[in-house]
Amino acid sequence: MIILKIGGSALTIKDAQTPTLDEKNLERIAQEASFYNDDMIIVHGAGSFGHIYAQQYKIGDKPKTPKDDYKIEGMCITQASMQLFNHKIITKLQEKGIPAIGVKPSSFVMTRNKRIEICDTSIIQRYVDEGFVPVVYGDAVLDLNDDVKFAILSGDQIITYLAKELKCNRVILSSDVDGIFTDNPKNNPDAELIEVVTRDTQLKVTDNQDQIDVTGGMMGKINELLALADEGIESQIINAEVEGNIQQAVSGQKVKGTLIR
Amino acid sequence: MIILKIGGSALTIKDAQTPTLDEKNLERIAQEASFYNDDMIIVHGAGSFGHIYAQQYKIGDKPKTPKDDYKIEGMCITQASMQLFNHKIITKLQEKGIPAIGVKPSSFVMTRNKRIEICDTSIIQRYVDEGFVPVVYGDAVLDLNDDVKFAILSGDQIITYLAKELKCNRVILSSDVDGIFTDNPKNNPDAELIEVVTRDTQLKVTDNQDQIDVTGGMMGKINELLALADEGIESQIINAEVEGNIQQAVSGQKVKGTLIR
Repeated sequence: MIILKIGGSALTIKDAQTPTLDEKNLERIAQEASFYNDDMIIVHGAGSFGHIYAQQYKIGDKPKTPKDDYKIEGMCITQASMQLFNHKIITKLQEKGIPAIGVKPSSFVMTRNKRIEICDTSIIQRYVDEGFVPVVYGDAVLDLNDDVKFAILSGDQIITYLAKELKCNRVILSSDVDGIFTDNPKNNPDAELIEVVTRDTQLKVTDNQDQIDVTGGMMGKINELLALADEGIESQIINAEVEGNIQQAVSGQKVKGTLIR
Repeated sequence: MIILKIGGSALTIKDAQTPTLDEKNLERIAQEASFYNDDMIIVHGAGSFGHIYAQQYKIGDKPKTPKDDYKIEGMCITQASMQLFNHKIITKLQEKGIPAIGVKPSSFVMTRNKRIEICDTSIIQRYVDEGFVPVVYGDAVLDLNDDVKFAILSGDQIITYLAKELKCNRVILSSDVDGIFTDNPKNNPDAELIEVVTRDTQLKVTDNQDQIDVTGGMMGKINELLALADEGIESQIINAEVEGNIQQAVSGQKVKGTLIR
């Protein structure tokens, strides 16, 4: 079984002021994903459908009162926006012949201190066994710590959890970058792609500090994937915006990127 | 805690050839529901967003092969349509000030022989405790019997299950009829509304046989509600199309209809 993560940045116009789909990218990525030849789960990020609201309502920050109406409103609006985003993605995947089933994290996952605690994966497993492609996503969920109450559950945390629980062979993490570099390639023309990252690799923090990513940005991703590597599951970061990358990756071909093991 | 069921027939144009929202009714019903003054769960039916596909793909009939592609397609399309319907409903409820959270049955419920077997209600309970109004709905779900595989889970079955599990005080079942009659009021002008139905009430089967309702029609509803009455939970059938009925019912006032106990 493989897990294909499609970054929200590849599917939306991330700097948009309102949730905005990148229709052209979605069309191409859905077409490429249809070349899968193994059991597959797709996990997608939030992009502008989620980050705008998660930031506006500061979901994940401590509620100010036991019943914080502003945070409750934020949870409702963020979840509804992600539900619509997931709907747009699964219907496009279905158009391309993928038996895509939307799976809503906030209906079956609860975190404690922002890490997954309640999560029955048996339904996802059965969808896969019956020939479906479950499509899970980053969502705003309930947190069992009463001081936290609400949390942003990133697509990256979902991947780590599902990969371990469902004993996946391969994780493909597609985003809007080629992989992990020795330095920020946007500022440093000499930055080189690192082909393999392990716990021993010395990484320079290259995240663009101007761009706050509520789900943790690239360092967050790497930490999730290193945790996966600790369990013996390899993953690969590839660029979803390079035509053909996802098609090659889901059909088992070699793609330029960073392997984490 | 109360459960308010809103029948799909009141929210959609049920005879439409494609899923069609009844915008005017949704607007009014959402406004009326906002007068709730107790913890509340809303359950909505499928109407033309679900029944068209459930019938077309004969979901609930035995699959022809272990991997029946036509049924798999039907599951994908029915679920996606219901996801969109739920999205339209929760965003309208939110507009009216209700902290509505969509809860997707096919992500956490599995049936066996078409009756709920796997269903963790703790997340729904916590949404209620935190001040949300969970909005659950009839959906196409996985069935654990390998000869059945896929099932239509009706909103009515969900109500019965949640009412028992979450120890609700009251169930309000709103539909497009005033309640249960002594005969079919559409054919017999002398038909009278039955104000109270118990296991001892002799009922004439008045369902219109021309109109196949995949979720079981009125007799299906009555049987679900009698099972609830067996557990000591009263429910009331009221007409959602009569202005003011839902507002009065959710705020605890008396409404014309049929009480089942």
